[in-house]
Amino acid sequence: MNAVVITVGDELLNGQVINSNAAWLSGKLFAEGFCVKQHLVIGDSEKDILAAFKSAWKNFNIVIVTGGLGPTHDDITKNCICKFFHCRLVLDKSVLRHVKSIFKRRGLPMAENNIGQAMIPNLAITLDNTQGTAPGLLIHKSKKVFCAIPGVPYEMKFITKYSLLPYLNKHLNKRNTFYITRTLHTIGISESLLSQTIGDIQNILNTKPLNTKQRVITKLAFLPRPFEVRLRVDVESRDLQIAARTMSLIIKNLKRLAGSFIYSYDESPIEKVVGVLLKKNNLTLSVAESCTGGLIASMITDVPGSSDYFLEGVTAYSNESKKKILGVKNSTLKKFGAVSEQTAIEMAECIQKISGSSIGISTTGIAGPAGAVKSKPVGLIYIGYSDKNCSFAKKYIFTKDRLRNKDMASKMALEIIRRTLLGIEI
Amino acid sequence: MNAVVITVGDELLNGQVINSNAAWLSGKLFAEGFCVKQHLVIGDSEKDILAAFKSAWKNFNIVIVTGGLGPTHDDITKNCICKFFHCRLVLDKSVLRHVKSIFKRRGLPMAENNIGQAMIPNLAITLDNTQGTAPGLLIHKSKKVFCAIPGVPYEMKFITKYSLLPYLNKHLNKRNTFYITRTLHTIGISESLLSQTIGDIQNILNTKPLNTKQRVITKLAFLPRPFEVRLRVDVESRDLQIAARTMSLIIKNLKRLAGSFIYSYDESPIEKVVGVLLKKNNLTLSVAESCTGGLIASMITDVPGSSDYFLEGVTAYSNESKKKILGVKNSTLKKFGAVSEQTAIEMAECIQKISGSSIGISTTGIAGPAGAVKSKPVGLIYIGYSDKNCSFAKKYIFTKDRLRNKDMASKMALEIIRRTLLGIEI
Repeated sequence: MNAVVITVGDELLNGQVINSNAAWLSGKLFAEGFCVKQHLVIGDSEKDILAAFKSAWKNFNIVIVTGGLGPTHDDITKNCICKFFHCRLVLDKSVLRHVKSIFKRRGLPMAENNIGQAMIPNLAITLDNTQGTAPGLLIHKSKKVFCAIPGVPYEMKFITKYSLLPYLNKHLNKRNTFYITRTLHTIGISESLLSQTIGDIQNILNTKPLNTKQRVITKLAFLPRPFEVRLRVDVESRDLQIAARTMSLIIKNLKRLAGSFIYSYDESPIEKVVGVLLKKNNLTLSVAESCTGGLIASMITDVPGSSDYFLEGVTAYSNESKKKILGVKNSTLKKFGAVSEQTAIEMAECIQKISGSSIGISTTGIAGPAGAVKSKPVGLIYIGYSDKNCSFAKKYIFTKDRLRNKDMASKMALEIIRRTLLGIEI
Repeated sequence: MNAVVITVGDELLNGQVINSNAAWLSGKLFAEGFCVKQHLVIGDSEKDILAAFKSAWKNFNIVIVTGGLGPTHDDITKNCICKFFHCRLVLDKSVLRHVKSIFKRRGLPMAENNIGQAMIPNLAITLDNTQGTAPGLLIHKSKKVFCAIPGVPYEMKFITKYSLLPYLNKHLNKRNTFYITRTLHTIGISESLLSQTIGDIQNILNTKPLNTKQRVITKLAFLPRPFEVRLRVDVESRDLQIAARTMSLIIKNLKRLAGSFIYSYDESPIEKVVGVLLKKNNLTLSVAESCTGGLIASMITDVPGSSDYFLEGVTAYSNESKKKILGVKNSTLKKFGAVSEQTAIEMAECIQKISGSSIGISTTGIAGPAGAVKSKPVGLIYIGYSDKNCSFAKKYIFTKDRLRNKDMASKMALEIIRRTLLGIEI
């Protein structure tokens, strides 16, 4: 059952609005076993809309259109539906009652153009929209479904959840195919090195879980993000159990081959993974930041309940505050400079001591664009670590971009905590 | 000059990734006078990619493809380009040098498959990508331009800005219509109140700058974001000077009507605006954060050169650290609690004193989801301010969402600095 999502609206084509509707709809459809094969965005033009309807209706079993159902002059989706399906608009009294009741409840007079909201293509059934005036419209014809929903996100979500998905499940989904998807997260390893570490992907994907002739389609994708690479595994089968067992075998293989790099198997961000580890080991953490400027503390405190293990963060942005608040020795700063292995180690040791936490972590570096000298280029960053057993610092050369440097150093600092606690080489 | 943006990637079709690339590209192209008429998203399938290329190349003057240019097996855009344009991959030595230099700079070994990044369709010219390994590819044929760019957002943005747009402007743009767009930013005011403050929009838009019969199209859009509302003004004319003068008259009117709310006329974020103000007045700043957990410090240090005015940040996440590092009185915490006007004021005063900065700012509140009591609900946040003349705290009740509370409180803290320095009522 292949689907297409068509989004109508000039505001998407001039960049004012990001098409988050299509992503949300696709995620929901995918989870129910309907495969979205295409997103199409077009402007508020009759010609473009009709051309899109024609091609979509020819190529897909399910066509979902959002946008252009409002009461104003630029909302023309409904007229295009009538032209395309050769039908006409008729007054739907129940929709009219609903529209009137909305205005009554809000104590507002109903503008004339809202009566138009109750004019429905006579081939369509309506999908209730308690969140707004325009109902969803659904045409089921030649074993295909065409559905138009308002573009306002919470109306679109309401109709999809309570009317569209139940309808599709009842009338189209024979559940003859199951899709399972898992995404694993890695940090601090390049896409190419990760792919090399994993080796021949076909060997992993061709995992045969059972003596079965059942067809299983498997897919592995590398999704790079700044400083992270995610691994997405898709499994498709007509037998849910076979799909699930195939998935768990693939995950097991990936874990065996690249497990030390994978910090998350369930979409948890690194700050949450580290938080769980600290809590499990009954440890506390404090942070002394220079070049990351508070970002590590902010990431850690994004996690609900982080006050259980996070004691304190200091952003020591000047030499003065490195000395005064943290207690870094003047001689260290003088001899090695603020951006050095020694200063990083001392910052981590100092914050650990001041706060009385189990672990101290620190950053110092040249975030850029200014501040570089010949021996210390933009992107040079030291990350310091200290606990009761050891203290050390690691040197990195990241990029020339200030914000990316902050981001990469913060993620790597958290990854260093994770690897140290798990005894993985850094 | 009509354009289409094609985005390649399964992760978009199963809802894992929102297509923000297409919106960004469309906005940039629109601003340069190229009209994007369609967005198309397809999966990592050769058949679908080739079909999309065929239809796009037939119907549009400019075809921009993002995604599928990485070094791994699921990146097939380049092979599809070769099939579609009947050309072949050849080694580009200059790209290979660049790829090698990236790995060398980071001190990493280069995986074998990265050599593939230097294999370029022989019909294409390359667009420099200093941000990553894959260059942009551009084919100019039959007065049309086909361009493929990596999907990683900062690489895509870099190539578009420094290579693609200059190329299109030089070779395709006949500039018979000029589009100017400006976005003004406000903070802490609702969309409806802002619209009420501005009054009749038509009066502002119908501004006639010159005795001219030249047609000028003007547009004002309200773009709400969490806790911010942006005002976007579009002006379109065949005469650049008329467009520019119309724009400046509209901006002048908006400034007169709602100037105190508008913190930025040039896309500068609030942290940069505050930085400029501090620098201009020769002032320094320190921050004591509790519920914002380091986010304010991180925002401030996102701005290059912030070390000129930002001295120090403390994330005092426990009562212990509020007392020990900041010096908040035990009696204050006992009598009023950590989340109180008095504690907020004392935190601001303390950090100002410790760091010796001109201004101290603080936050304390219930970010959520836990920690609420009956008299102190989730979302209750106090922001403290202190300078040599005065200290005060403001009380806010934001939302039930932890991350939105952090975000809103941080922005409002910066807005409080701005308004105080400019003598605007808070």
